[in-house]
Formats: sequence, structure tokens, C-alpha cells
Amino acid sequence: MRILLVGATGTLGTAVHQELVARKHDVVTVARTGGDLQCDVTDPEQVAGLYRTVGQVDAVASAAGSAPYRPISELTVADYQAAVTGKVLSQVALVKEGLTHVTESFTLITGVLAREPIVTGAAASLANGAVEAFVRAAAIEIAPQRINAVSPTVFTESLDVYGDFFPGMKPVPVAEVVRAYVRSIEGRQTGQVYVP
Amino acid sequence: MRILLVGATGTLGTAVHQELVARKHDVVTVARTGGDLQCDVTDPEQVAGLYRTVGQVDAVASAAGSAPYRPISELTVADYQAAVTGKVLSQVALVKEGLTHVTESFTLITGVLAREPIVTGAAASLANGAVEAFVRAAAIEIAPQRINAVSPTVFTESLDVYGDFFPGMKPVPVAEVVRAYVRSIEGRQTGQVYVP
Repeated sequence: MRILLVGATGTLGTAVHQELVARKHDVVTVARTGGDLQCDVTDPEQVAGLYRTVGQVDAVASAAGSAPYRPISELTVADYQAAVTGKVLSQVALVKEGLTHVTESFTLITGVLAREPIVTGAAASLANGAVEAFVRAAAIEIAPQRINAVSPTVFTESLDVYGDFFPGMKPVPVAEVVRAYVRSIEGRQTGQVYVP
Repeated sequence: MRILLVGATGTLGTAVHQELVARKHDVVTVARTGGDLQCDVTDPEQVAGLYRTVGQVDAVASAAGSAPYRPISELTVADYQAAVTGKVLSQVALVKEGLTHVTESFTLITGVLAREPIVTGAAASLANGAVEAFVRAAAIEIAPQRINAVSPTVFTESLDVYGDFFPGMKPVPVAEVVRAYVRSIEGRQTGQVYVP
């Protein structure tokens, strides 16, 4: 398949890229800087331009999203908006603009905080909950195009940096998260939230 | 208890108001127009002003939130933003600004579309999913203050207007939804999403 991979240069995106190439897919990588194509997906105009440049693809996989982490007493309404812009509306735009360019499927990134909160994570939880509900809703309207989310917890490989924020929570190896992307892209389910 | 009721003049808000008064609570009603106090809760400045006017309350109950309904092919990124502004950030601001004014609890409104989608409801689903995840996250940081969500499906009383959008889905009498508000306000749980 020809696959547009957004957020291709991060820890997860790099691993997804390697696996998709190993599985003989033709992957077009997108990142804010680096990758085959540069795009700030928080700007819907740039997302529309990205699809004009790329043309038709079989699948879109997103591993891009950011949200501010702060104690809830310090999170401002602007911080929650930043999470919405950086992780929700960006991925919604990838779907919205992709409806006329994507043959088979969209795979979005969300995360465990949609269901299991951590301290300082309220904005990220809000964003993840939004993405997961959007995926379930979009699925019933975009068929036969498919859409799923991958919702990992902290990566085993990132425990030294983020482990203290996830006390006692079981980490997941990046390879297991990559497997969920493959399942979404090569499988046939839709409206699913894969928890690797 | 002294309770600030936001969205007090709608179908749900009116019913919540009646029950809270019947239960001998002192209810300050808020609406965009009408109510004891007028406030556009989508404006964080007005929310801050609302709390300055009201002072200390025991509980805040929100029955206010709006989102655009359109086929997903017609929903724009601006429509999703409108849902976020109209139902998510508005209620987040009620919590954020209320942290220093509310003694006991916050009760927010969300809805079945967080879990069960309907056609034309993608923006509303996104907003509801955001609110429910936020409630779970906020709960672990604001204790001993509590926060819950009430997540109803279509009201039995609204079936003649909205029934066609919820084919085969069981409606809920407004009185059952009101009961969930009472449970949140007078009970002791936190981080719950009550599905009446």
C-alpha cells in the first residue's frame, strides 16, 4: 500500500516507519521538520496542501500529537486549547481533508490517559478522550473508508524520561504499539480503539 | 447546599432546578439569557466574573453545552472547534475558575455520543469524549473537591424533535437524568461518568 505517515520522525513514528517498510509498503513520511514532506498538521491549510502534493494514498497513519502537562491548578484554558489544537483538530483535519484522497484507512494516535489519568495530564486526557470518541463517530459515516485509534500507555523505551509520571502503570514496548498500527492498516476493522 | 446551576433554563436545567429546590437546596441559576445571573460560559472572562459575583458555593452543576450537528463530509474544522468551545472549554473553565470558589463538587454534562455514535454527531462525540476524559483526570487532582459527569442519551421528552437521529436507541426520561445530578451532588463519588 501507499501510506502517508505523519509524525514519522518521533520515537513511535520511526518504529512504525521501519515496520511498514519491512512489510513492503510504500511510505511517504511527514514531519514538522525532516521526513519526505514537511507539514505543520495543526494548520488545516497545510494539511490540505499536503494532500494536494501527495495525491492519492491507501492509508494515513498518524503518530503526531502534543499536549501540555501541568498540575491542574496551573493548566489554563489556553493550555487545554493547545492540547485540542495539537492533538485533536490536527488529526481531525487529516481525516477531513483526507476523505477525498485516502482509499482505505486512517489510523490516529491517542493514549491511555483517555481512560486512566495521571497527575499533570488533564489536558492530555481531554485530548485523548476527544480523539477516541471522534474515531468511533467517524467510522459509521466514512465507510467503506475505515478509521481506528491506537491508544498506548507509556513506552518501555521512554520509562527513563516519563516513568515517574506513570507510577505502577505497566509500560508497553514500542514494537507492540507498532503492531496495532499494522492491525489497523492491514486489517478490516473500523471504529476501534486498539490498546496495545 | 448553595448550588450554582449553569444552563438552568433548558429542558434539562429546568428539571434539575426544580428537583434541587424541592430538595431544599439554595440554587443560583445561570443562563445566557434569563436565570438569576447571565453568563456566556464559553468566555472564560465571564466565567471568572460569574464566580466573583457569586462568591462561595458548595456545588456547581452544568447542564449547558452546544455542538453543531452535520454529516461528517460537511463538518469543518471550525465546526469541531465550535463543539470544543461550546461544550468542552466552557465546562473546563467552570472547573478551572471554580477551584477557589467551590467547596464540594462539580457536575458536568456530556452525552451518549461519547460512546455510541450517531450520523451527523461526530463533533458532539468528540466534545463528549473530551469532557468525560477530563472529568476522570480532574478528579485525581482536585480532591477533596469532587467532579463527575452525567452522560444521558436522548430524552424521552425530546423524542419528537430528535428521535430520528437516534434510531432504535432507548431514550431516557429527564427525571432519570436529574437523579444522576442529585447522585453526583449529594453523593461522595468522584471521577464518575453517570449514565442514567
